[in-house]
This record gives sequence, C-alpha cells and structure tokens, in this order.
Amino acid sequence: MIEPPRTADVGIARLDVDRAARTGTPEVVFAGGKSPAETVACLAGLLDAGVPLAWATRVDGPTAAAVRDRWPAAHVDEAARIAWVGAPPDPVGEVLVLTAGTSDGAVAAEVAATLTASGVGCRRVDDVGVAGVHRVLAVAPDLAAADAVVVVAGMDGALPSVVAGLTDRLVVAVPTSVGYGAAFEGLAALLTMLTACAPGVLVVNIDNGFGAGVAAARIVRSVRGDRVDRGDQR
Amino acid sequence: MIEPPRTADVGIARLDVDRAARTGTPEVVFAGGKSPAETVACLAGLLDAGVPLAWATRVDGPTAAAVRDRWPAAHVDEAARIAWVGAPPDPVGEVLVLTAGTSDGAVAAEVAATLTASGVGCRRVDDVGVAGVHRVLAVAPDLAAADAVVVVAGMDGALPSVVAGLTDRLVVAVPTSVGYGAAFEGLAALLTMLTACAPGVLVVNIDNGFGAGVAAARIVRSVRGDRVDRGDQR
Amino acid sequence: MIEPPRTADVGIARLDVDRAARTGTPEVVFAGGKSPAETVACLAGLLDAGVPLAWATRVDGPTAAAVRDRWPAAHVDEAARIAWVGAPPDPVGEVLVLTAGTSDGAVAAEVAATLTASGVGCRRVDDVGVAGVHRVLAVAPDLAAADAVVVVAGMDGALPSVVAGLTDRLVVAVPTSVGYGAAFEGLAALLTMLTACAPGVLVVNIDNGFGAGVAAARIVRSVRGDRVDRGDQR
Amino acid sequence: MIEPPRTADVGIARLDVDRAARTGTPEVVFAGGKSPAETVACLAGLLDAGVPLAWATRVDGPTAAAVRDRWPAAHVDEAARIAWVGAPPDPVGEVLVLTAGTSDGAVAAEVAATLTASGVGCRRVDDVGVAGVHRVLAVAPDLAAADAVVVVAGMDGALPSVVAGLTDRLVVAVPTSVGYGAAFEGLAALLTMLTACAPGVLVVNIDNGFGAGVAAARIVRSVRGDRVDRGDQR
Amino acid sequence: MIEPPRTADVGIARLDVDRAARTGTPEVVFAGGKSPAETVACLAGLLDAGVPLAWATRVDGPTAAAVRDRWPAAHVDEAARIAWVGAPPDPVGEVLVLTAGTSDGAVAAEVAATLTASGVGCRRVDDVGVAGVHRVLAVAPDLAAADAVVVVAGMDGALPSVVAGLTDRLVVAVPTSVGYGAAFEGLAALLTMLTACAPGVLVVNIDNGFGAGVAAARIVRSVRGDRVDRGDQR
Amino acid sequence: MIEPPRTADVGIARLDVDRAARTGTPEVVFAGGKSPAETVACLAGLLDAGVPLAWATRVDGPTAAAVRDRWPAAHVDEAARIAWVGAPPDPVGEVLVLTAGTSDGAVAAEVAATLTASGVGCRRVDDVGVAGVHRVLAVAPDLAAADAVVVVAGMDGALPSVVAGLTDRLVVAVPTSVGYGAAFEGLAALLTMLTACAPGVLVVNIDNGFGAGVAAARIVRSVRGDRVDRGDQR
Amino acid sequence: MIEPPRTADVGIARLDVDRAARTGTPEVVFAGGKSPAETVACLAGLLDAGVPLAWATRVDGPTAAAVRDRWPAAHVDEAARIAWVGAPPDPVGEVLVLTAGTSDGAVAAEVAATLTASGVGCRRVDDVGVAGVHRVLAVAPDLAAADAVVVVAGMDGALPSVVAGLTDRLVVAVPTSVGYGAAFEGLAALLTMLTACAPGVLVVNIDNGFGAGVAAARIVRSVRGDRVDRGDQR
Amino acid sequence: MIEPPRTADVGIARLDVDRAARTGTPEVVFAGGKSPAETVACLAGLLDAGVPLAWATRVDGPTAAAVRDRWPAAHVDEAARIAWVGAPPDPVGEVLVLTAGTSDGAVAAEVAATLTASGVGCRRVDDVGVAGVHRVLAVAPDLAAADAVVVVAGMDGALPSVVAGLTDRLVVAVPTSVGYGAAFEGLAALLTMLTACAPGVLVVNIDNGFGAGVAAARIVRSVRGDRVDRGDQR
Repeated sequence: MIEPPRTADVGIARLDVDRAARTGTPEVVFAGGKSPAETVACLAGLLDAGVPLAWATRVDGPTAAAVRDRWPAAHVDEAARIAWVGAPPDPVGEVLVLTAGTSDGAVAAEVAATLTASGVGCRRVDDVGVAGVHRVLAVAPDLAAADAVVVVAGMDGALPSVVAGLTDRLVVAVPTSVGYGAAFEGLAALLTMLTACAPGVLVVNIDNGFGAGVAAARIVRSVRGDRVDRGDQR
Repeated sequence: MIEPPRTADVGIARLDVDRAARTGTPEVVFAGGKSPAETVACLAGLLDAGVPLAWATRVDGPTAAAVRDRWPAAHVDEAARIAWVGAPPDPVGEVLVLTAGTSDGAVAAEVAATLTASGVGCRRVDDVGVAGVHRVLAVAPDLAAADAVVVVAGMDGALPSVVAGLTDRLVVAVPTSVGYGAAFEGLAALLTMLTACAPGVLVVNIDNGFGAGVAAARIVRSVRGDRVDRGDQR
Repeated sequence: MIEPPRTADVGIARLDVDRAARTGTPEVVFAGGKSPAETVACLAGLLDAGVPLAWATRVDGPTAAAVRDRWPAAHVDEAARIAWVGAPPDPVGEVLVLTAGTSDGAVAAEVAATLTASGVGCRRVDDVGVAGVHRVLAVAPDLAAADAVVVVAGMDGALPSVVAGLTDRLVVAVPTSVGYGAAFEGLAALLTMLTACAPGVLVVNIDNGFGAGVAAARIVRSVRGDRVDRGDQR
Repeated sequence: MIEPPRTADVGIARLDVDRAARTGTPEVVFAGGKSPAETVACLAGLLDAGVPLAWATRVDGPTAAAVRDRWPAAHVDEAARIAWVGAPPDPVGEVLVLTAGTSDGAVAAEVAATLTASGVGCRRVDDVGVAGVHRVLAVAPDLAAADAVVVVAGMDGALPSVVAGLTDRLVVAVPTSVGYGAAFEGLAALLTMLTACAPGVLVVNIDNGFGAGVAAARIVRSVRGDRVDRGDQR
Repeated sequence: MIEPPRTADVGIARLDVDRAARTGTPEVVFAGGKSPAETVACLAGLLDAGVPLAWATRVDGPTAAAVRDRWPAAHVDEAARIAWVGAPPDPVGEVLVLTAGTSDGAVAAEVAATLTASGVGCRRVDDVGVAGVHRVLAVAPDLAAADAVVVVAGMDGALPSVVAGLTDRLVVAVPTSVGYGAAFEGLAALLTMLTACAPGVLVVNIDNGFGAGVAAARIVRSVRGDRVDRGDQR
Repeated sequence: MIEPPRTADVGIARLDVDRAARTGTPEVVFAGGKSPAETVACLAGLLDAGVPLAWATRVDGPTAAAVRDRWPAAHVDEAARIAWVGAPPDPVGEVLVLTAGTSDGAVAAEVAATLTASGVGCRRVDDVGVAGVHRVLAVAPDLAAADAVVVVAGMDGALPSVVAGLTDRLVVAVPTSVGYGAAFEGLAALLTMLTACAPGVLVVNIDNGFGAGVAAARIVRSVRGDRVDRGDQR
Repeated sequence: MIEPPRTADVGIARLDVDRAARTGTPEVVFAGGKSPAETVACLAGLLDAGVPLAWATRVDGPTAAAVRDRWPAAHVDEAARIAWVGAPPDPVGEVLVLTAGTSDGAVAAEVAATLTASGVGCRRVDDVGVAGVHRVLAVAPDLAAADAVVVVAGMDGALPSVVAGLTDRLVVAVPTSVGYGAAFEGLAALLTMLTACAPGVLVVNIDNGFGAGVAAARIVRSVRGDRVDRGDQR
Repeated sequence: MIEPPRTADVGIARLDVDRAARTGTPEVVFAGGKSPAETVACLAGLLDAGVPLAWATRVDGPTAAAVRDRWPAAHVDEAARIAWVGAPPDPVGEVLVLTAGTSDGAVAAEVAATLTASGVGCRRVDDVGVAGVHRVLAVAPDLAAADAVVVVAGMDGALPSVVAGLTDRLVVAVPTSVGYGAAFEGLAALLTMLTACAPGVLVVNIDNGFGAGVAAARIVRSVRGDRVDRGDQR
C-alpha cells in the first residue's frame, strides 16, 4: 500500500505536497476562484514545503501584481496567465503546438508555459487552419521531429482530424471558446474533436491549455525515460 | 401581386399544385409519417393535377410495394428511399457529391436521386474523409468541373471546411447521423459545419439529402439559365 | 495535383495569399479575437502580398480607429462592423436581402457590406416579418428580380420558410441572436431554419452575415459566368 | 375556503371526483403508463362515482380492446387514441383546428376528440403549411367564424406565427414530434412557437392534443357563457 | 380573400398599420434591439398613421427619456419597462395576475401594463408560492371573479399546476428567469409549465409578460363580446 | 486510518464485502448491464463472503428466473425489479412514500422494496398529484407519523415543492421518466425538484428508487439510533 | 386537516409566518431579486410577526448596508452572503462540511451560516479533493463523529462518490459553478453527483448552500429528537 | 512535402493503404454502418493491398459470420466486437486497463483487443469503482508497472480523477454509456472526465474503446522507441 502523502495546511488550502513525487507534476495553484492574497498564500505554502517551482494558472492582473510584490523575481507570462516562483528545469524533448487561428493564441500560450514549467521543450506554429489545408501539410517535418503534438482550435475544431491522419505522434486536442453562435463557447469544437474520424486524438476540456501541457509533458518524459517511479516490467 | 396558387384537395392533403411554377420544384410527398395508402393517394392527386413527375421521399419497403402495385412502371431507388412516377427531365449541368465515409452512402443516394428527379447531372466520389487528406486533394479536378458541390459527412463533419478552401463553387454541407456517443445523432457534424472556418459553406438539416439536392439543383439551373420566371434585371 | 499555395507569414498569422485564386474570396481578417494592432498587421500583410482589397469583419471601435489611423482612406461601415482598404470591384448582379425585423439590421448590414466588398449588387428590404404576412407577399417582384436571396431573422426564424415557397431563387437563411428566453441566443431561429418545411433553404451560423454574403456572392458569380477556374464540362 | 373535494380510492388511484365541478373538465385517465386493466379500473371508478362521461387518452390497441370488452357501447377513436364511456354533451361553439401537414393528423385528431368529449364543436382544415402560404390566407373566413384556433405543426413550427397575425382569436399552438434531425423530436417546433413574432400565441407540450383541446374548450365555454361557477364581477 | 393591409414605411421599419383591425392588438414596438431614436421613430410613425395608442415594450432608461422628451405627456411604467403615447381605452373585465414570489414582480408588471394598454382590467396578488400552499387556496374567490388568470413564476414554476386544478378559467403561465443554477435562466420553469399535470395551462416564452397580457386580453374581449370581426356562426 | 476493506474476487467483479460495515448498506448488484449468469455469480459471491442478504436491482424476467433457479426460496418483487436471497431484518421506523400519479408506481415499488431489504418500514400513498391539491393536504397526518418522506413524481415534478412546505421531515425527491415531449425523459421533473421553492428537498437521479430508499433508510436508522459506528460526539 | 397558516402581508410579499411551526425552518428572505429596501421590509415584517430570528440569503453589499443601517446589531456573514437579525438558538449536534477545493469556499460558507442560524453545529474541512485521495481518507474520524455530511464540489464533482463509500451518514452533495468550459456552470458536477456510483448521495441545486444547510439541519434535529410535531408511531 | 499516399478503390470505399506508414495504425474498418458484404469487401481490399493484419470494429453477429465464412481462420472477439484476418505482431510493453464496474466490460474488451491487434501488451483489472476507494489504491503496483493507463467508466465517471492523482503515467479516460437518467447515455461521465480535477487525463468519445486503444498503443510505441518515422531531434 502507498504511504499516505503529506499535506501542508495553509488555512484556506490543504496542499498536496507529495504530488510531484506521485504524478510527476506538483500541485499547481488554480488562481481562477481565488483572491490575490489566497493565491500568494498557496504559493508560499508550497515553497515552504520545499517545492522547487511553485506556480499558478489563470492569473489575472491583480494576482500577477501580488505575486510580483511578494517575490520580485517571479516570472509572469501575461499571455498565458501563468506565474511561477523558482527556476524551471532544463527542457528535454519537444512538443509541437499548433493553432488553427491567431485567436487561439492565448490557449496555446498556456500550453507553452506549462511545458516550460514542466521542463519540456516546445515549438509553436500558429494559424494553420484547414481552410488552407496546404498550410497543414507544410508542417509535416515539424510533426516528424516532435515527441508529441498539441493542437489548439476553436470554431469548427477540424484541425486535429487532419493532423492525426498525418502522424504517428499522439495528438492532444484542445478545443477553444473562440467563435460565436453555434460554436456555443467551444462546444462545437469539443464535439468535433471527440468524434474525430482519425484515431489517436485525445481531448481535454475547453480552453484547458494547462491540462494539455501536463499531458504532453508526461508523454515526453515517458519517451525520454524520465519517469517518477518506473516499476519492473512484467 | 401573385395569383393565388391552385391546390388539389385529396382529403388527407391539400396539394400545392403550382409549386413547381413558383419555385422550380414540385410539391414532393414526404412519406415519412404517412401510410402506404396515403402516399399513393398523394402521388395520384399530383398526377391527376397534371404534374409530369410525381415523387416521394423517405419511402420504406411497404410504401415502395404499394407504389409499384399501383404504377408498375414506377421507379424506386431503395438506397435513396425515393420513388417516382413519370420520367425525369434530361439532366443538365453537374453536381459533385462527396462523402466522408462509406456509411454516409444512404444520404448521398438521396442527394443523387433528388438531382436526377430534378433534371440535374450528378457525379459521386465516396469515402474522401480528412483522416487521409490527400484523398480530398485528389478531387480537385472534379471540383473544377462541377457547377456546385454537395458534401455529406457524419461524425466530426470536418470535410466541408477543407473542401470549401479548395474551390469557388458553392458547398452545400449535409451532416449525417453516422457515429455514436458525442456525435449525438448528427449534432456534432451539424455544429462543425455551421462553424466551418472556410466561408461559402451552407448547411441543411441532418440527413436531409433531399433538401441539399433541391438546393444544388437550383444553383445549377441558375448557372445554366434555366429559371422559372426570370424578371428584368435592375 | 494543386500547386501548394503561397502563405505570407506576419508573425501572428500565416496569411493564405492565394485563397482568392482558389475560392474567389480572399482571406478576410476576423478581428473578433484580435487586438487592433494584430488586425492592422494582418491587413498590412495582405496588402503587401498584393491583395487588391484587404478587409476585416467584427471590427469594433478601437480597431476601426487603428485602421483609419494607418490608412486614412480606409472604408469603415460601422453598422456592419466591416472595414476595408482598397476599392471593391464594380458590382454585378443583385442579391435581395430581407430582414424579419428592425433589430436584425446589424446582421443584414454585414451581409450587404460583404456583397459590396465581393463586387456583387445588393437590395435590402427590411421588416417583412410573417406576423404581417402580406408584407412578405409584397416583395414577390423583388424576388423575381434577384439572383439570390438572403433572409435574416431572429426570434422564431419563420421568414425563410415562407419566402422559399414563393421563389425558385436559392434562399440563404441567417438566424440572428435577436430575442430572449426560449430564443436561446439564436438557437430557436437556427433550428427553425434547418427544419424549414420548404426545400431550398440553406443555413449559416447564427449572426453570420459574412458567410451568407460570401455564399450569395458565389451564386451570383456563377450565374453571371464569373468563375475562378471554370473547367471543361463533362 | 373551498370545500375539500371528494376522492374515489380505487386502489391504484385516488380519483379526483369533483374536478369537473372545480375546473369544468373531469379527471381524464392518462392510459400511457397504465395496463389495460388499470385503465379499465380507473374508468369504472369514475363511472361509479357518477361521472357522466368517463374517458381516457393515449389508449393503445390492447387497452381499447379491454375497454370495449367491459363496455361494448364504448366509443373508441383510434386515430386520436381516445376512448370514452357515456355520451358527450351536445356541442356548442366552434374551434378551428389547423394542421401544417398531413403527418400532424394524429395530434389534430386528439384535439378534435377532446373537443367533442368536452361538448365543443370542431372544424378541421389540414395541410395548410406556410411553404404554400396562400393556403393559409385561404382559411381567413374559417378564422373569422371560430371561437378559438388550435394550430398543430411539426418541423419548423412556423404556422402559428402566420395565423396569429391574421386573427384576433386566441391561437393555441401544439408542436408535434414530426420531423427528423434538428427537429429534435419536436423541440424545434416548440421553440419556434414560444418565440413567435406575433403575440397571442399560447403553447402546450409537444404532441399534447389533449391539453390544447381542454384549453380551447375552456375558451369556448367562456365565450358562450357556460362557466362552472361564475362569481360576481367586481 | 383578405384585403392586403397597409404598411407605413418609416425607413428603419415597415409598420403594420392595420394589425389592430386584423388581430385586435396594434403593432407594438419592441424596443429591445433598437436605439432610443429608432423607437421614437417607430412610435411617431404609428401615431402618424392614426393609431390611437402607440406603445413600446422593453423600454430602458435612455429610451424612456427619449420618449418623454418627444412626448412630454407620454406614460412610462418603469417597473414594466413599457411606455405609451395616447390614452388607453376604458378597462373591461378582469384578469387575475398571480406571482409565485416577489422577484417575479417585474414580469407581472409587464403583464399588468399590457392589460391596461389593451383596455382590460387587472387584479394582482403577489407571492403566493406553493411552499405555503394555503396562500394559493386563499385566492380561490379571486379565481372565481376573474375572466382569465395569468400565473407568473420562476424557479420550479410549480404554481400553474396547482392553480389550474382549482379553476375553470384559462390559465396563462409565464415562466421567469428568476433563480440560479439548475433554473437555467427560466428553462426549468418553462419545462414544468409545459408538462403541468393539470390541463388548461397555456405557456408563453420566458419573461414574456407582454405576450401573456395580449393573450389574456383576447380572452376577456371574447368573453365580453368585444371582437374585431365576428363572422356568422355555422 | 481505516483498515483496507476486504474484496471478494469473482472474476467478473471485485465485490466490496465490507461495505455494509462501512456504510450500513451492503454492496447491491446492479443487474442492469449484466447477464443473468453474471448477476447470479455476483449474488453467490456475496453469500459466500457471508453477507446475510444478497440482493440485486433492475432485475428483468430472465435474470429473475435464473435467480429462482439457483435459489428457489429467493424473493422476487417484479414490480420493483428487485430480487434477494436471505431474510431482511425486521423493520424499524417508517418512511412515507408518495407518488404523484399511478404511472410512477414502478419507481415507488423500488423505493419500498429497498426499504424492506434495508430493514425499514414503509407506508405508501399513491396518486396525490397537485392538480387536486387537497389530496396532498389530506396526507398531513401521514407526514407527521413518518421518520422521512420520499416523493416520486414525473411530468412537472411539482409535488415535492408542496410537500416540503407542509412538514419538517426530510423530503427525498425522485423524478421519474413518466411523461412525453418536454418532459424529456424526466429532465423536466429533475429540474423542478432541484429548483424547488421550499428548502429541505433533496434529489436523486431520474427513476432511482433504489438510491432514494437507501438514503431514507439511513435517515431512519439515524433517528432510531441504529448506526454502524457511532463515534463520540464532540 | 391542517389549520390554514397565517400570512403577513407587507405589500410586496405575503410572508408565511407559520412556516417554522410547520417545517422547522422559518421563511427565509431570498434577497437575490430584491432591492435593499424590499429585503429590509421583508425582514421587518417577519420580526413584527414575532419570528425570533429573521434572516436573508444572497445578500450583496448594498443590502448588507441597508440591513445594518436599520438594525445595527444585525449579523452579516459576507463570505456566506447571509444576514440575520436576532440570536440563533444554541447549536446541537454536528454537520461535517467538506469542500473539494478552496474555490468552493463561498458555497460552504453559506452551508455553515445556514446551520448556525438553524441552531446546528458545523465542522468544516476544506480542500480534500480526490486528486489527492489520501486527504479524503484522512477525514474518516470526522465522518464518524458527524450526524450528517455535506460535500461541496465543483468541476468534476467526484468527491461525494468517494465520501459516500466511506460512511453510513447521509451525504448531501452541493455542486458548485466553479470551473470552466465543459463544467458548464456546474452542470458537470451536478450530473456527476446525480449518477454517483455510491448510494446515499442526495443532491441540491448548483451553489445552493442554503438548501443543503436546511436539509442537514433537519437530519440533525431528527437524530437529536428535536422535531416540530412528532406524531404517534404506527 | 509528403508523397501523396496510395488509395485502394473497392467501389464502396477508397482505402487509405499507406495509413500505417504515416500514422502507425492501418485503416481499420468501422463495420457500424456497413452491411456484412461491405465489411468483407473492405477487409479483402486491405489484404489485397498487402496490409498484414486487416481488422474491423463494431462487428455484430451477421458480420462476424460473413468474415468467418470468407476467412475460416479469422479471429473474432465477440465481447469486443472486433474481428481480424492475419496475425497481430508480438506484444511489447503493457497498458493497464481499469474498469469502474462490471458493466463497462464490453468497452474494456474493445480496448484490449485493439491493443492486441496493435502489438501492445494489456493487463485488465475490473470493477475498481471509487465507491470502494481502497480497491483503487490496491492497483498502485499495477500503475507503476504500466506504460500507460486506460480507465473505462460510466455513470459518474469519477475513477480517472482518482487514478490520475496516483500515477505519472498518462491516463486515457473512456466514458461509457452505462447508467440511466441523468447519465444521459454517457454525457455525465464525459463531462466529469473533461473536468477532472487531476491534470493528465485525456478523453475519448463515449464508448470509444478503439480510439483509446490506438492512443495507448502510440504511447507505448513511443516509450519503447518503436516509431514510424522518427526524425532528427532539434
């Protein structure tokens, strides 16, 4: 049986200090529903518990300011809405991050920052939507060079279906809320990706660049032999 | 003001006899919710009113038998579930009908039979789904030769987005109920097509091969100068 | 096989420079999710690549100001939220644009400006909702004079069903988000139009005046013999 | 305060014997989820309690047989799926029942049988869909002669919007589950009717011919001065 | 055949001047999607065409100010968001308007103002929700005195089911968007009312106090013998 | 820390043998997606592990036959679709189970059988729908005598709102799939119950009589002081 | 028959003064859709009618200020958005309130304040989400010590399924609107809780901390023998 | 640029012969919408084109018989509804496949057969639902030994959230349509998995065991260094 992991109680939260040891990814603070002070408290709690890199997602302006105020050397990526305190590990491997359109850029930025924080390399190619399908074909060399692929697309969400037919890399698809009307805040893209006619497409929540980045990082670490607790093979 | 059109009362229905004169397409019997006898009665009423070709859609086995019983020379297309009495006009022009997969064939057959009944030529290319996107690129010459394009696709419904980026022909997109789970009986494909990132995609109801065929026929007749009541241009 | 089209890389976007050659419509900038500077950069990139008319949709106030600041001669249609740099081609043909109510005017304006930018003539008749159905019958001469019809309607979205029963022209239906409660931001109108009892109705996304305009322009150009690459007829 | 009404306990049900005295309509047995024996037991309980006309809706074949077996003189309307024991009152007034298409006939039959059982006259005109809008205009004299109007329509459900713009009679709209795809089992028609651009449209549940009939009967009885317990006017 | 009604063209709208003659209710301006100037223009157009009472719904503050600026004697009901110019007819009959809770008051105010503008009497009883069902039983004398009943309820929308079991008056049910979570902006109440276990409940759109008022007014006028064009009875 | 509970591996399942010790309710076999042989194997596994009463829900005819074939003394409640082997404990306390209509009887039977198997008394009163609200008031003495109340209702699902306003007992609400059209297979009743205007209503899944019975049994056991592992009170 | 309860008419509301006598919980003012003055008027009406503790939920800043202005000694819990005038009863028993994450804190605060106002003890343990499942196992002693459990969770809403498998206490599950994308404002968590694989989970509306608190208080009072009107047991 | 891949035209289909070379997975026949003869024709076409293992999914009884009739040595896995002709490659690596309940077995069988056909090892542990969470903790050694994890769950779909918090392996989550009512044919489980509070969960379509198997196989092949066309690393 697994040893019960330690938690750090910071009043408003019960931080899962050993999560990195179990899953390869530390507990990351979701700043979305928290006040700046709460996010700062959580980051401080993680640092106190010895986490080498404490980070938060969905960081808005006031929270970014509060983080910088407490830790002047903190890194804040405004496009990605991610902030961290500490130094990310050196990157290994490479994930190719594709966007269907320029408007998907904020979510792609969250993917990229998550990869960086996770110590994984990232290469971005933007605006390769299927309405000009030759732009997709043109990224074939990038696909071959990557350890995994993340495809970010809103509106019709058709790009992962095409990409997954061109590569044997795992394709992580991120629907975005870009669009209007029948896009229904990303629902159209989500359904498209779930029903992609090409197998090998795996889907995360709408606008969830963080989840896609974590998953892609796990793949890269697996490929690169950098696993947490590799057991004996049967 | 338009002359009030004539109607033929056959008890269970009030047939819109002059619809072909107004819209280029005669009233077509939707056999879906009708008994075989009701469908036969409607077809007979149209023929009595002088319609040159009386036809019905969503014709199941018993209705097809009843039609053949009454008019031995009737034409029945079982794949398309369409039956007609009389001779269709000679075909003009050409509509290219593409399917994403073999399972979309029944709907494509309805498109094709509708075009034939409407006196318009049809060319079908099946199974050109985007998971093997080179199959789509290979139909470029067919696109250039067509007056209009109908794209039939279920599951992710991504094909029209790619096709519309390759041609200046009007693309009529037909979502189908092919798929399972998050395909939600065609809803996923419908939303994909409505949010297609390439403009020039026009959408009909799920599995509505008849509507797509009628619309494509109108385009061809417009292109070929075969309109009902062409007024003076301003 | 088609020649791989050229793209212009402007950093944030990969512009599909040859799209007009392929589809008859150039790449148009969707300003919706972009900053004013990004929209200006995309327009500049298109102009640099030799596009005769560079335009953008969903242009809000700040973006309009940025466009005018860069190109003082730019045309901005505030009602339509469309801006362009360059001169549209002389109009050919005529599309009839109908609205069900005054509140649908903004979407109709987007249709009209798209037609103008595409070099196609436009005639608008507003507020012909079916609650006063004689207003619909009164547009019969306009229907006869048009090359295609665009119907813009919110709330119950019933107008296209009536119009398509009066004409052989193709009817492009645009549901709008006008209404409240069970209108569900345009969903009610969308479903009504998809299930229109009259065939020949083709539907675009909610509030998608741009898509409707592009499609109608393609019809007119087909009718007027002004196609991109008309192949040999079989 | 109202006298607590009597109920008749028949084991499986607690019949609301005084409902006709309170509401003008007796408790009617919904045979939908009941066995033939249960429906018969409920009807018998109502008759035992002195109800002059005991009736049931959603009566399928076996239940109809069981009713006839118990009461050979029972009236069964198979199209309407309604059965009753006893004699309906003589009809007063007239409700006009319109259908958009022949496939809506079963629901219209339920409306008509409900009116008959309620002692109200009924006039039916079928197949007046808006795709041939002159058929709607042709019923104007029928509208003027009616005390109330019930409009039954599936698919796009657009008919009530047009009818309500032509009359000052109350329009009760019944969406039906006729159609496929985006008709979503009557949801499209339901939303259309709820958002009808003409005021004065009141809506009942999908396929609820019984509810529409009861409501229309109440209107007629009000107009004809045949109310249950008319209090003093203030 | 009906005489084609006149329309008044005011540029942005095509006013249906004869609607009161056809339907008993004049065209009423929906100010929702219009600018203050547009609403004023529509009201002026109706007055110019001789309408005795020109009114608008969904009137916000700026529009109310614009109306008062143009017609200082205009009546503005801020709770109901309704404004009118001219004098309503003397009221006849009485409609009982019930609300389930205090928060439903704005919609009930729209019902009441619509009745007043339509020349029909109104009696309001608020806050009679079914959680204290004796409050509902206490309105029995009011039900008996009314010509029709309008029930306004959000959240669970259960009140019409109870009321319709207590009266033979027609019950017009108005779901409101009051509530949160699974109330889904009024959808829960709407579905409850459509599936009410008591027949005789007729439903309008969410928050549509105007539509409920118009319908109730039609009932009262029918009962009171004040119809537009009563034809001969068959 | 809790002792890791034992599981019994029967090949197709991993039975949670100690669940009764933890939660007061043993693992109960959901026969829904299982073959008759699989259900028998699970019941046998539970009996082998020493469970005093092994039972299954959603038992159809073939499974009931297989159970009886293996254990001739097994108890099968066909209305409730529940079967058990062994003897239930003597009942303590009393739960009042109300249904809105006769068609809700199958779900109420599942509640009742679950209570019996759980050793809790049950009193059923059927057909007390709010359309005859005095029937609800008449059960007030039954409410006062009960330890908890379960209310089973389909269609509008309005009954729990009224009941919860009459009692201080906990009200467990079970929406049923009884109804048609906008009842949407129980969704309407579910939403009504979740938004009930009276607090103290707790909701289970549609048609989930088992879950309601388990919850009600827990309440009774708490009231009667019959808890699994009552810790010290703080 | 129950004595008709008294109501206090304060103009905008009809207060259900005897509700505490019937249900154990007094009428509580839902300040959500009310102005500060209206909420104050309702609280004053309740106090005038002799209610010992008058309270309101969904109290925003201005309303809180208005309450304090009128009753300087009023208690306002800003996190819970609850205010009351008067003194709550001494607490009996204990409810354990768990949250899955820190962002669920506002809803948990509403549960806690409701319990306090209801005279029931409360113990809160926050941030025990299942992603670190050992945190859940660690609360086993708290479960054993509680009379009932309330679980508050957004996003995947998985916590109640795990908790209900560890205890025989009743588990009241509160979905929250925390999350984004496919969380659909709490719908995902709501569906998860309704389909929880562990029986004994009862669900309230999204973000309905008040309803959960009232229900939990009823359980505690039942267990502690503190019921309103305990009838004779059969 | 990629060489245009070859296709094999078998009349009803256009087989993507080079897909294995591009993506590592050959085109697999979806027998769902095809007749037995069509499936056989597609398999034959693939074999003719030199595919070493031709296989089909969603194979029902008649299709299985047709396959065996044509190729007596064909392998048919009835639980998985998968059939193949030829010999799968020797398995490498190991994927752990977990199910939440016995009813999820059919989907898990599809995962397992897909892995076998793809030459990847598989270890299945069934019935580890979170209602007995210690069963989940007991699989920790299996998690450590696996290259990737597939979790199959219906109803509340909560299992992946717990598993992903215990391991650094990639977790592929498959929602199933097991359940009833608010499970909405797998929608509840799908939303739960998309909003899983633990990152690293990737989701496929409801009941899509094939897609999950293909994705897991890609991961294993990446980890084991068995890629199609590994380019140079940057």
